[in-house]
Amino acid sequence: MDRQADTTAMRRAVALAARALGATSPNPVVGCVVTDASGHPVGEGYHRHAGGPHAEVHALREAGVLARGGTAYVTLEPCDHTGRTGPCSQALIEAGISRVVYAVGDPNPQATGGADTLRAAGVEVGKGLLEDEAEAVNIAWLTSVRRGRPFVRWKYAATLDGRIAAADGTSRWITSPEARADVHRLRAEADAVLAGGGTLRADDPHLAVRGIEGAVQPLRVVLDARAEIRPTARVLDGAAPTLVVVGEDADTRHLPDAEPLRLPLRDGRIGVHDLLDALHARGVRSVLLEGGPTLAGSFVAAGAVDQVVGYLAPVLLGDGPQALAGAGIGTITEALRLDITETVRIGPDLRITATLKGA
Amino acid sequence: MDRQADTTAMRRAVALAARALGATSPNPVVGCVVTDASGHPVGEGYHRHAGGPHAEVHALREAGVLARGGTAYVTLEPCDHTGRTGPCSQALIEAGISRVVYAVGDPNPQATGGADTLRAAGVEVGKGLLEDEAEAVNIAWLTSVRRGRPFVRWKYAATLDGRIAAADGTSRWITSPEARADVHRLRAEADAVLAGGGTLRADDPHLAVRGIEGAVQPLRVVLDARAEIRPTARVLDGAAPTLVVVGEDADTRHLPDAEPLRLPLRDGRIGVHDLLDALHARGVRSVLLEGGPTLAGSFVAAGAVDQVVGYLAPVLLGDGPQALAGAGIGTITEALRLDITETVRIGPDLRITATLKGA
Repeated sequence: MDRQADTTAMRRAVALAARALGATSPNPVVGCVVTDASGHPVGEGYHRHAGGPHAEVHALREAGVLARGGTAYVTLEPCDHTGRTGPCSQALIEAGISRVVYAVGDPNPQATGGADTLRAAGVEVGKGLLEDEAEAVNIAWLTSVRRGRPFVRWKYAATLDGRIAAADGTSRWITSPEARADVHRLRAEADAVLAGGGTLRADDPHLAVRGIEGAVQPLRVVLDARAEIRPTARVLDGAAPTLVVVGEDADTRHLPDAEPLRLPLRDGRIGVHDLLDALHARGVRSVLLEGGPTLAGSFVAAGAVDQVVGYLAPVLLGDGPQALAGAGIGTITEALRLDITETVRIGPDLRITATLKGA
Repeated sequence: MDRQADTTAMRRAVALAARALGATSPNPVVGCVVTDASGHPVGEGYHRHAGGPHAEVHALREAGVLARGGTAYVTLEPCDHTGRTGPCSQALIEAGISRVVYAVGDPNPQATGGADTLRAAGVEVGKGLLEDEAEAVNIAWLTSVRRGRPFVRWKYAATLDGRIAAADGTSRWITSPEARADVHRLRAEADAVLAGGGTLRADDPHLAVRGIEGAVQPLRVVLDARAEIRPTARVLDGAAPTLVVVGEDADTRHLPDAEPLRLPLRDGRIGVHDLLDALHARGVRSVLLEGGPTLAGSFVAAGAVDQVVGYLAPVLLGDGPQALAGAGIGTITEALRLDITETVRIGPDLRITATLKGA
């Protein structure tokens, strides 16, 4: 087989998968490219939303009879179970595909087994091609399966010296318009966007996606233990769904339109894992944490930050609040260590993505 | 003329210039490539140390008679004056060079005029090719000429959240061995390496270059207003020259071997510009600032940081001292804004270089 052609096809499948980030939960994102018997691409597709056809089905439909004797490149092991749609392993066999190459094995015990079924039907099966790229595009869903809670990406914007505002609290703007626009892409990729009461009161954030064509709006989640949010808060507008999370005894009579989620308070605060469990139960598989330093610190302390996306502006302040506080780390050996997985220039700023080792 | 060949030759000249970083002060670094009349490279050279032949002379010597009718690519405008060596403009004319391309004009009023002399002799002169790259390699010298004081590069190593140590003061190690080795390259490129009394007492730093073959040791400069340094301090060993800078009335009888530099104290501290002026007078054109947050803050407050080199480790702490403090910046509009001029992965860490706008 032509290794270069394999790589090209799988890279295309990964790009297809990425198109649906933020739209498929509780399902993974999956992309598929089908080639004919001579290796020519004849069909492609991706899983667009939960309940809709899987990527393989889209690609096989487009390929039609040309799929016979061909190869299917899939970013995730084809499923072997009947959910809202039939098993992809069967669809591939019925289409006459003679070879399946997938990047990442399915960690979901309900869905796994597709590779075995294909092999039993005489289909040649290869795995692991562009595994790192395919893992990266699906990191939210894979992490949610492995940890049994939503993937948490913490986003912050700071100066080179780690300040998120000046000494007098001013922060508009540390980062560039380009960086601030990029945050909307992160929101669009997430199932839920989370902010805490401090940010709510200080910034009155909106948290919805703006400026991205066709984006699925995330669930806006605000932590508001004592239900202090005002009915006029921007996050309560109709631009996206909103979940106000309050302590179990909070008085919410001033919020007639909101259906708050009530959680027990621990030392006066909503517990990180209580919250993540409740969101997971509602189908949330990825959370973008946009809260301030204290909320981020409580997530770090709870072992619940899987990835960090920092927008660093080439600015020095020398004073002012820090990006992260109260993470419960007292000495260097307790530091949270990650891997830098991407660095990209965004206008004049730098976006650094760092991922928990083994996430 | 062949633009691609021009660029290739000038890129080589820039690389040659870079070889002598840290060795030429008070002169600039300069590289030169000479091609014959048909565009074939026949000679190259760089200025190795003050008082030695200029880059053009090295390259012309290597080219010999093949230089006749050829082109000389020089990173800096050829000099027109007789210092310790003769003017390069004359040397180029006498060698029969028919075209000179230089990247950056000479800002030094004593040396400028080379281009005019060449043109008057009938030599075709072009300027500005790879100007940004040639500026970058010579930024220390160019800044020192433009500002009349040494170029100051501030180096720090921090976590993603801007901490240089944990809450208990532990900091070994935030960055990787690769990043720490890279700092020795920065030291080798500098004329002087500077640390303050706080760092001196807390870390007993050595500040000399280790592990770089052929490196010229920088002058180690320690700011020690009250002469509290101990005679056994590592910075007083023989690995590199050391200058202890003390207040004018400091008692230095316990330092019989050191010849301290005495400067007036301002509010109990050595003034940043007093120090830079004194170093400039001693021929220092570039300073690597390795001090702690307070010393760095005093340099920022004095408008004396031209470039920042930050080693960022993918680590979170959430508590502990910051990279920069006391810079006198109270609100966001007063922030020091720079341009990111380079980002490089160094092992698991990221090195970010940010340069003052217009430096």
